[in-house]
Amino acid sequence: MREITLNRANRIINAAFAEGKKRELKPLAVVVLDAGGHVKAVQRQDGASMLRFEVASGKAYGALALGVGSRWLHNQAAERPHFLEGLSGVSGDRVVPVPGGVLVRDGRGALLGAVGISGDSSDNDEACAIAGIEVAGFTPQAE
Amino acid sequence: MREITLNRANRIINAAFAEGKKRELKPLAVVVLDAGGHVKAVQRQDGASMLRFEVASGKAYGALALGVGSRWLHNQAAERPHFLEGLSGVSGDRVVPVPGGVLVRDGRGALLGAVGISGDSSDNDEACAIAGIEVAGFTPQAE
Amino acid sequence: MREITLNRANRIINAAFAEGKKRELKPLAVVVLDAGGHVKAVQRQDGASMLRFEVASGKAYGALALGVGSRWLHNQAAERPHFLEGLSGVSGDRVVPVPGGVLVRDGRGALLGAVGISGDSSDNDEACAIAGIEVAGFTPQAE
Amino acid sequence: MREITLNRANRIINAAFAEGKKRELKPLAVVVLDAGGHVKAVQRQDGASMLRFEVASGKAYGALALGVGSRWLHNQAAERPHFLEGLSGVSGDRVVPVPGGVLVRDGRGALLGAVGISGDSSDNDEACAIAGIEVAGFTPQAE
Repeated sequence: MREITLNRANRIINAAFAEGKKRELKPLAVVVLDAGGHVKAVQRQDGASMLRFEVASGKAYGALALGVGSRWLHNQAAERPHFLEGLSGVSGDRVVPVPGGVLVRDGRGALLGAVGISGDSSDNDEACAIAGIEVAGFTPQAE
Repeated sequence: MREITLNRANRIINAAFAEGKKRELKPLAVVVLDAGGHVKAVQRQDGASMLRFEVASGKAYGALALGVGSRWLHNQAAERPHFLEGLSGVSGDRVVPVPGGVLVRDGRGALLGAVGISGDSSDNDEACAIAGIEVAGFTPQAE
Repeated sequence: MREITLNRANRIINAAFAEGKKRELKPLAVVVLDAGGHVKAVQRQDGASMLRFEVASGKAYGALALGVGSRWLHNQAAERPHFLEGLSGVSGDRVVPVPGGVLVRDGRGALLGAVGISGDSSDNDEACAIAGIEVAGFTPQAE
Repeated sequence: MREITLNRANRIINAAFAEGKKRELKPLAVVVLDAGGHVKAVQRQDGASMLRFEVASGKAYGALALGVGSRWLHNQAAERPHFLEGLSGVSGDRVVPVPGGVLVRDGRGALLGAVGISGDSSDNDEACAIAGIEVAGFTPQAE
């Protein structure tokens, strides 16, 4: 399997929401992108603010851009902020370099897509992405 | 109620997919935008091509832009193509002016959001949007 | 196989150039995009003008956008120019809707990417894309 | 000779890949731009992530922008980050100011183009660009 089917994308989203509920987080937007960075499924919970889809997408897109979790991008900020700005520029302003964008891999490590979450703290967003990916039977890469 | 809850957005999407299956259409992308034009929920079926989310969003966004269904925009093309071009420009290139973007209203006519669909012919896309909105208990406006 | 390897992308390009030479065409740019629309390999022949890469990419990107060859987009121009303009807009101005963008499928019909060519007439560009894809052992879809 | 021919652009790319293999680096994208900043040839190795072409191009484009290697840009970051931001802006967001973008000069110092590489660390990317340029018989300028 080299693809996240829609069924399993929805399972990722539901599991991420369950994790958010368990942790009593604020309303979340969860985005699943395919390996080419294109939207497969999105759900934004009631009460999540206006641009949460765009932020969540930007985390997932940034992860796919370089083949790492978006926490890796975040960790570049202290020493190489200009790299993040350059990356954002050449991506067409599609990258949000903070935790919460997590790669989805299959059991053999093949890249299938990415999950991005926004709504609570970046750390909590990331925890829900990881949980959602694992519950759906995939392997997460957060950095 | 002045809002499409996530539960009902998902119901719209599922009912639109059911209509597509009944009509034996190609794989679809279905987008639900809130009244501010922001993504509430999206699902792109397996096999739907790369930019179907963007096209479906563009139909829904165009509908909200002028408070009509996107078929109305399409009908402007013959006599006022320059109007559509201007609208696209001021929207930040976010409008696709063909059928398949349908407004979602409540029983009193209040605007709650819009549904955009892309994947099959524009007429079929629109039919699925209308069906999805009605099954979920809302009132569609297609032009 | 769900991917165009670099080896086979280069084979496509070399075969497309051979076809161009046989037909005595002007210098060409040949672009191979993966299924997500991202550049896999490009070669622009000596003498091909400045923006041939961008034009060739735009043909291939447009093909992937809707899952058809770019000739299909071209055929929309007479009756639905506003659709092409809308598509271009939501794609971030990445679509050139004329022949010469051809989908690459495997023997079972799975989409692997697209080839775009620019340099000579659109018909000749397309013929070279088809030839390149076939020589490399894939199945072309031109419309 | 005031131009990198396609033959020699390909030789640069192959030599850069050979250097990457020797150093056991991650998969790379190598871009060769002509003196006007336009794509001459690109190859992205199997496994290199989604946006490596854009990042590699951004390094090469930044080098050409100011007639220095992109390491020079990187060295500006500590004291003049605002200059890099301004440069990125006026370039249309086409600059990635980190090492790995290397100018290509002939024996007399005339500027012929630039090579950009992305995939491993910036230092390793740059080393492969230098090696590729030298093997192809040109003179590299890395900063």
